[in-house]
Amino acid sequence: MERIYFDNAATTAMDQDVLNAMMPYMTEKFGNPSAIYSYGRETKMAIENARKSVAKILHANPGEIFFTSGGTESSNTSIHASVRDLGCKRIISSPIEHHATLHTVEYLHKTGQAALSFIKLTPNGYIDLQSLENLLAESDDKALVTLMHANNEIGNLLDVKAVGELCRKYNAIFHCDMVQTIGHYPINLHDIYIHFASSAGHKFHGPKGVGMLYVNEDVKIQPLLNGGAQERNMRAGTENLYGIVGYAKALEIATERYEQDSQYIQELKQYMIAQLRSTFPNILLNGDAEGNSLYTVLNVGFPLTDKSDMMLFNLDMAGICVSGGSACSSGANSISHVIKELYPENAANIVPIRFSFCRHNTKEEVDTVVAKLTGLV
Amino acid sequence: MERIYFDNAATTAMDQDVLNAMMPYMTEKFGNPSAIYSYGRETKMAIENARKSVAKILHANPGEIFFTSGGTESSNTSIHASVRDLGCKRIISSPIEHHATLHTVEYLHKTGQAALSFIKLTPNGYIDLQSLENLLAESDDKALVTLMHANNEIGNLLDVKAVGELCRKYNAIFHCDMVQTIGHYPINLHDIYIHFASSAGHKFHGPKGVGMLYVNEDVKIQPLLNGGAQERNMRAGTENLYGIVGYAKALEIATERYEQDSQYIQELKQYMIAQLRSTFPNILLNGDAEGNSLYTVLNVGFPLTDKSDMMLFNLDMAGICVSGGSACSSGANSISHVIKELYPENAANIVPIRFSFCRHNTKEEVDTVVAKLTGLV
Repeated sequence: MERIYFDNAATTAMDQDVLNAMMPYMTEKFGNPSAIYSYGRETKMAIENARKSVAKILHANPGEIFFTSGGTESSNTSIHASVRDLGCKRIISSPIEHHATLHTVEYLHKTGQAALSFIKLTPNGYIDLQSLENLLAESDDKALVTLMHANNEIGNLLDVKAVGELCRKYNAIFHCDMVQTIGHYPINLHDIYIHFASSAGHKFHGPKGVGMLYVNEDVKIQPLLNGGAQERNMRAGTENLYGIVGYAKALEIATERYEQDSQYIQELKQYMIAQLRSTFPNILLNGDAEGNSLYTVLNVGFPLTDKSDMMLFNLDMAGICVSGGSACSSGANSISHVIKELYPENAANIVPIRFSFCRHNTKEEVDTVVAKLTGLV
Repeated sequence: MERIYFDNAATTAMDQDVLNAMMPYMTEKFGNPSAIYSYGRETKMAIENARKSVAKILHANPGEIFFTSGGTESSNTSIHASVRDLGCKRIISSPIEHHATLHTVEYLHKTGQAALSFIKLTPNGYIDLQSLENLLAESDDKALVTLMHANNEIGNLLDVKAVGELCRKYNAIFHCDMVQTIGHYPINLHDIYIHFASSAGHKFHGPKGVGMLYVNEDVKIQPLLNGGAQERNMRAGTENLYGIVGYAKALEIATERYEQDSQYIQELKQYMIAQLRSTFPNILLNGDAEGNSLYTVLNVGFPLTDKSDMMLFNLDMAGICVSGGSACSSGANSISHVIKELYPENAANIVPIRFSFCRHNTKEEVDTVVAKLTGLV
């Protein structure tokens, strides 16, 4: 059975050129980058070149780029540091953030380390900027605003520049989870009023187990992990050498291919919307799929029926990989917290399916999936 | 120039069979292990098989094995959890721990979260068990004892069973940094009174960027990183799939090869001691190199002279990779905290060189290094 992989927002296939770039560092070039001999300096150089390349692409300084074990660690570091080191007494976030953010801010709230407020959403799932400003204006206590650039389940994009300006106006710290957008959009960090940004390599055909944390040079924080002096004392632990090299290579490739890939994938998404609409007049598009939305993500709400209840299972049987929510919260077969927020009254009557695309997908695959769905709804 | 790599305590070359085991998961088998479709379950299975294999080798239950980004994260998690979740009000450690431990306990002490006491060392660098017991007996407040199984700089081994029994007697929590011993010795965790153990894959010919944390099933802790439900809610973030597969494979190989490799490497170490002694009558063996010591590590103290001051530099010029202290603390060219503890009076007059071996090293390499040293001391 031919597999159709429409779950690229969960993870992506590593690019062959990324693997090729990593291979020397998985074989002969294994020296510890923190060693003082030339064989270590050689691998240190690979890491510093990766840092410079990433910084250049994101319009940041190399000193603002830190490599981590992934998006979750990056977000945890940012949020903890804002409260611990930067004097943030309250956190403003949204109820549809990724769990790496949501569970961290809930932890800090629960343990009395910070107050916590959630921004209202617009009916189609955007962050309501007026609600954000109202919350910022509510108190003089320094605030951390933590919001994701693109929602990983429904794809809605945030106006990061506008959020940054509100943070500037109210002297707030701004952390942005950019896990779904770095490697998918041109990002100019110096053009945004922003203090922290999180990213993960495996979301754009890079390796798993490696992420990036941008820390604006204007803020000084302590590390989340204590230990060795790696990453200029900001991230202890022997560097994930090949992961870092792979992360940078994947970002370089994504940047080079952006124009063609984004257009191609956007067309796939539009094609799938059209095909679904003509086949299933009753479907919902969760979020604002045709508005300011990730070109990679299409979240469709099917009406709950005896048949559609088993849809994910039956799609799997047919070799089609899609997800109900995010992979990170899929262990339990519960309704996604994002969908619940979008449909507070009737989330249980909707079967949400997230289709997420990459450049390897084709219209033929869309046709196959739509045809298969016809028998399942 | 042929390189001689005698810095295997810093990091090791990845085994070709480890890389081969990882490759399918870096190419076609990339599905997110937390996805609910069969393609994700396939990679989930790879992780669970890795967990079972590691558990079996270490005589633990699979439910006690958690994969992390490395030894540093494992130690940080254990130490923070002991204070935050397990009621430890004081920490008993030693001044010669790895910085992943030392900086973490100092952080908790500095921020008022726990009292901190250091155990005395014996003259040749062992943990003084009587001093440990005195400290344990000093107070009824629950203690965390965090000690490394083998010192990464001088190689001295800890009697983990005896330390565990003292912890049992005084109802203390025991965390052991086993980064230098897991993959180098047969370890039976169920035979030790122990709550946490840390390990890192790259120390035994496995991949960088992946580690393991053993958590005894009798203790219930919260995760260090908040987020997704991965690793049974204990370690959020998309799993480092190939890293985990590689970690387990490396541990399997190390276990199979233990008898032959440990004997071979021990002989290399003894041979080097003999060659050094006959060439340089004035050298010190830092720690108890011929006693209860890692067979992989030999730390030699050369007398400080105008020439020996530049010894590390000149060895590097000759293509010989060794280190002064640990790689994790080598950024600054300062005297190792371990050597300072061993020689409080005259550490500055000793040039410590750590030679650390693996199965790829040979007696011919030892001869070359000793000959080279002759011109440098």
